Amino acid sequence: MKMEDWELIIIGAGAAGLAAAIYGARSGLETLVLEERMAGGTTSDAPMVENYPGFSKIGGIELAEKLTLHCRETGAAIHELEAVKGLNLKGKKKIVETNKTTYRAKAVIIASGSHYRKLDVAGEKELRGRGVSYCGICDGPLFKNKKVMVVGGGNSSVTTTLYLSGIASKVTVVHRRSAFRAEEALVKEATSKENVEVLWNTEVKEIKGDKLLSHAVLYDKISKETREFPVEAIFVQVGEDPNSKLPRESGVEVNKEGYIKIDIFQQTNIPGVYAAGDVTNHPVKQIGTAVGQGITAALEAYCYIRRPYYRK
Amino acid sequence: MKMEDWELIIIGAGAAGLAAAIYGARSGLETLVLEERMAGGTTSDAPMVENYPGFSKIGGIELAEKLTLHCRETGAAIHELEAVKGLNLKGKKKIVETNKTTYRAKAVIIASGSHYRKLDVAGEKELRGRGVSYCGICDGPLFKNKKVMVVGGGNSSVTTTLYLSGIASKVTVVHRRSAFRAEEALVKEATSKENVEVLWNTEVKEIKGDKLLSHAVLYDKISKETREFPVEAIFVQVGEDPNSKLPRESGVEVNKEGYIKIDIFQQTNIPGVYAAGDVTNHPVKQIGTAVGQGITAALEAYCYIRRPYYRK
Repeated sequence: MKMEDWELIIIGAGAAGLAAAIYGARSGLETLVLEERMAGGTTSDAPMVENYPGFSKIGGIELAEKLTLHCRETGAAIHELEAVKGLNLKGKKKIVETNKTTYRAKAVIIASGSHYRKLDVAGEKELRGRGVSYCGICDGPLFKNKKVMVVGGGNSSVTTTLYLSGIASKVTVVHRRSAFRAEEALVKEATSKENVEVLWNTEVKEIKGDKLLSHAVLYDKISKETREFPVEAIFVQVGEDPNSKLPRESGVEVNKEGYIKIDIFQQTNIPGVYAAGDVTNHPVKQIGTAVGQGITAALEAYCYIRRPYYRK
Repeated sequence: MKMEDWELIIIGAGAAGLAAAIYGARSGLETLVLEERMAGGTTSDAPMVENYPGFSKIGGIELAEKLTLHCRETGAAIHELEAVKGLNLKGKKKIVETNKTTYRAKAVIIASGSHYRKLDVAGEKELRGRGVSYCGICDGPLFKNKKVMVVGGGNSSVTTTLYLSGIASKVTVVHRRSAFRAEEALVKEATSKENVEVLWNTEVKEIKGDKLLSHAVLYDKISKETREFPVEAIFVQVGEDPNSKLPRESGVEVNKEGYIKIDIFQQTNIPGVYAAGDVTNHPVKQIGTAVGQGITAALEAYCYIRRPYYRK
């Protein structure tokens, strides 16, 4: 196994990790970003982004590409399709093992983001990729003029609904509560679409289909009734869980939901280890806040590594 | 005097205030931004911005315009050339008085930024606008093919030096320390310019001129020598001080340098009063971090005002 030395290693090439790398490289640190998929993170999954300040309206993939290009131009290295398999963060030299190489770094920024939460109902796993999806922009175009369902009540649910309303013949939003937890601008636009309906106080109890998805079993929490609802795709948008297992096992403190605890400097409980973006316990999970946190983490890591005169 | 009611009032239309307004308005809050100058903040003063993630290289004025346009498109109101003259923040209704109107708001975000620090030497005040400047992009073009001086050692000093090196015949950087506190990428580029020289460990003791600036009096801290240095413009880039006087007088807690104390939610010590950007004690002062803080402040203000089900 090769052994490589870097000054700063960033785990995850989403908005937080790419912003951190821009600042790490521009500060003169030898900076490496490790990403198990392709660079871009969950920004790439957004059909349209209207709230990253400076871009009134931009496709998620296009914004992710701009962030990635900006990062590459600063000289930071991005290794895609390279998954982190092991971490040893407690020593002065931080060890990061991937499927390809073992790295040593002076500081590490964890920007590993989060993954889609599942409904955990019968049929969900079996029909994933056969009607069950977690990403509207990835799979929405497969269901042109079909009846689709979106499950959830947050920004990602409403954004996905808006996107699908331009593709599908009918979008049924199923939400277990009686109000959305989403930006009013998005809610107004989505609910004004003629082909969008919302089933409030409703839960998906089971997903059915023979080879391909055909029905959702819905439970109405008010009437207490259960019914089968015919639909060809279900987009599950019920939130995320943090990708914090390896850091946690290496001694990084997390809260009870598994989010990495950070302070105002983006420091974790381990010296030289920082966290930024969706993996942290910061109360807001937006592209703009991930970027701000990534910048702070990188500049703090710079101070930790180089100990400049103004931070003795 | 008119009295107007708004849900959210943001003081300052720089990067932090504009980002806050984008999120305030998109969340459905009646949002007003008050700005004593024109919208854009200190972003407009940057000759070139290479570190706001998503834009590899963009003029400060152009970026400020994009942020302002984005903000206007969300429906937030921006009142330019309207200076805040009085604050009463302690009650449930926050009172904001300007030179034109008295406003009441349910929540206030202070994003009033900072102002240029002075050298506090003889001649500085008298020759301001006659050779002494605090903004390279504003006044640099007046000194085409002239000898100019930049005082300071941070990012703004080095960025201004780079900008002026393309205009002036010679740029002399005067810094009281022996190293810059700036991004290495900027330092490398600036110090590689043939017409840039750096005088380390040197202080400006006086600025001289009859009607127009003609000399700087320089003190070399190593050799202990003082000399007169002929120059036609001096760009002072020695940092900023926070614009926190009115909030402080209204009970908002500040640290010993006058920066508003915030927590991870951008809350101040007064319920319903938030702060974001350069006016806060956050350790990093960058466009990207100001944006992240503005977003957080707006979403927290939204929760404070509307008390949605997920934040009871």
